[in-house]
Amino acid sequence: MRYAAWLEERPESAADRAVSNPIAPEDMISFGAGQPAVELYPLDALARAFERAIREDGPTVLPYGQAEGVAALREVIAQRLARRGLHVGPEDVLVTSGSMQGLHLVGRLFLDHHDLILTEAPTFMGALSTWEQQQPRYLSVPVDSDGIVLDALEEALSRAPQPPRFVYLMPTFQNPSGVTLSLERRQRLIEMAEQHDLLILEDDPYGEFWFDEHAARIPPLRALPGAAERVLYLGTFSKILAPGLRLAYIVATPRLVAALARAKRGVDYHTDAVLQQAVVHLVRDQDFDFEAHVARARAEYGARRDAMLDALETTFADRATWTRPEGGFFLWLELPRGLEGALVAQRAVAEGVTVMPGPIFFPNGDGGRHAIRLGFSNATPERIHAGIERLARGMSAAV
Amino acid sequence: MRYAAWLEERPESAADRAVSNPIAPEDMISFGAGQPAVELYPLDALARAFERAIREDGPTVLPYGQAEGVAALREVIAQRLARRGLHVGPEDVLVTSGSMQGLHLVGRLFLDHHDLILTEAPTFMGALSTWEQQQPRYLSVPVDSDGIVLDALEEALSRAPQPPRFVYLMPTFQNPSGVTLSLERRQRLIEMAEQHDLLILEDDPYGEFWFDEHAARIPPLRALPGAAERVLYLGTFSKILAPGLRLAYIVATPRLVAALARAKRGVDYHTDAVLQQAVVHLVRDQDFDFEAHVARARAEYGARRDAMLDALETTFADRATWTRPEGGFFLWLELPRGLEGALVAQRAVAEGVTVMPGPIFFPNGDGGRHAIRLGFSNATPERIHAGIERLARGMSAAV
Repeated sequence: MRYAAWLEERPESAADRAVSNPIAPEDMISFGAGQPAVELYPLDALARAFERAIREDGPTVLPYGQAEGVAALREVIAQRLARRGLHVGPEDVLVTSGSMQGLHLVGRLFLDHHDLILTEAPTFMGALSTWEQQQPRYLSVPVDSDGIVLDALEEALSRAPQPPRFVYLMPTFQNPSGVTLSLERRQRLIEMAEQHDLLILEDDPYGEFWFDEHAARIPPLRALPGAAERVLYLGTFSKILAPGLRLAYIVATPRLVAALARAKRGVDYHTDAVLQQAVVHLVRDQDFDFEAHVARARAEYGARRDAMLDALETTFADRATWTRPEGGFFLWLELPRGLEGALVAQRAVAEGVTVMPGPIFFPNGDGGRHAIRLGFSNATPERIHAGIERLARGMSAAV
Repeated sequence: MRYAAWLEERPESAADRAVSNPIAPEDMISFGAGQPAVELYPLDALARAFERAIREDGPTVLPYGQAEGVAALREVIAQRLARRGLHVGPEDVLVTSGSMQGLHLVGRLFLDHHDLILTEAPTFMGALSTWEQQQPRYLSVPVDSDGIVLDALEEALSRAPQPPRFVYLMPTFQNPSGVTLSLERRQRLIEMAEQHDLLILEDDPYGEFWFDEHAARIPPLRALPGAAERVLYLGTFSKILAPGLRLAYIVATPRLVAALARAKRGVDYHTDAVLQQAVVHLVRDQDFDFEAHVARARAEYGARRDAMLDALETTFADRATWTRPEGGFFLWLELPRGLEGALVAQRAVAEGVTVMPGPIFFPNGDGGRHAIRLGFSNATPERIHAGIERLARGMSAAV
């Protein structure tokens, strides 16, 4: 059987499988996946919301719907984005079946075979799988503690064989590094986008999970002056509710929303409308404070980050270095010199803890060899301490 | 802004928009869309099923899930298919976010740019939109009252510039013609597939809606000897429950299920797991007889088909010809000589009834000029009679 070229030329790798099967058995401590905390699922409120969506709105939401999404949900999304300083209307919003679908649709709209995509290095490897059909090439630009390095970006653009079709970024609490692009760099990046005619894909699944309630919030790229025509913004409900619920959105100009809706019709026609309406009910439920739920999640993930930083300090203080994220789900750990991330990940599993090896986050496979990604969202503080001890044993076994 | 080639070269047409916006205002009688009857939505049972999926199974189905689908749903699907004579295991089933996504995934797996697809003429135009990114060429083969004409298929294969990547068929109660491929042709088609090394995509959204409970059922192509390696079968819950719920499935060999699952990870990671689990509860609900619900739908659509055939006989007996489908949602009407389907569709809307013009169902635009598709699923018998009267007025206005 002959598959399409992209699949013939790139059979599934071990890394693909690792990513695609993120659920660890009960006794395994998982720092590997970006699973939201199961303890935070709002079960009662969700059950009520779905029941209402069917009983109160069934005749409206159960027929075929619009590819753009349920009107009331597009409004809810626009209203919630204002809290982040992003002021848009429902006409600027397209509902998607998860952020992965948003990335896929952008690829469908803009990518031809072998086109060039510019990314951070490291970057979210899951995004890259959504574009593999077009077999793009990647130009990758290093990230430091303030996010993507703009001088390196400038330099990469100058030596690029062709202009990149878009720049894929996760500017806030990045997966995998945990770093955030500084406000100064954000402003300069928008200027560079204008200058070099760049389209920017801003992926923001973790932007609502900041840990210091009093620190000044850095606005999304899309909220900056001049960004509306240059930046496609992706947000999601899957991380603040539950990832088994596939519900996310793209913010774009109305013209692009129309083009994305057309691309979406050929992909899944529209996103499940009962789910969309249920989230409308959830956000508007008088007996459930949606924003308090998000705040509680922030506090919980903050406590888990603290636990991981403490445990790392206790265990690896003089042997490794790591990022100190101000939000999100992940941090990046540079292993003691000579240790290989892939081997540490393997030995760690044998000790009962999963971590992700660094190289899979580099689209051209040219970095991260001595690093691992640690996710702190998915284990309680107690288990985080235990997991870091297991990791230390795994590291000893990898020497 | 430069879009990908497929979109640059084929801007959205009026037909695309007609298809993509099938919901008519309240006073319009819709023979245009393939909407299931809103009167049949099992609201109570659905509300109960969703509530259970969250309250009883939340911790299991709310984390990230498997691209292949929820295990219990794959089992339910395999069990229900046995009723159609299709004996497969859960390992042969991939859950999709609607049948459109199934078609999209098959394209992602098998189609390279400009590949050839063989279809019926007329065929379901929605399927074609899922593959437009690959800009395929179409080889189309006529359909008569027994389905696709196999001598014409043989002839088409002999003059094809390259082998088709797959053959796309809706063998049972076809959209748009309403005809069913005879058992004899099914058997010969499987032989031809072996002989010519063909992969067949069997799309079966309407196969459960037969109207004569006593007639011998023709099994799906996939159920015939020799078909397991040659036929990919697509079925759906959207038509028997409600289309706003996007839930369907592909039956394939386990090896192909694995490849399709990989293609799916990059499209939407997995299908909403709460929806999947809710349908498991619905099928197993002691207080809701799922199969009786499907039987009631059959009876209702049968009554609507009868109403439409009666009304057509009364109104157009000596002026037009039409198919007499034994199941499904649609029939095909050949207009009195000289009348154009596109003009009739336009005039009919002015009279308050929507119909679909014939040409949009021909991938190469080379047929159906004097025909329209009529859907009888979406209006009560009384409104069907009124709608055919409006259509007659529209036709008079189109002369």
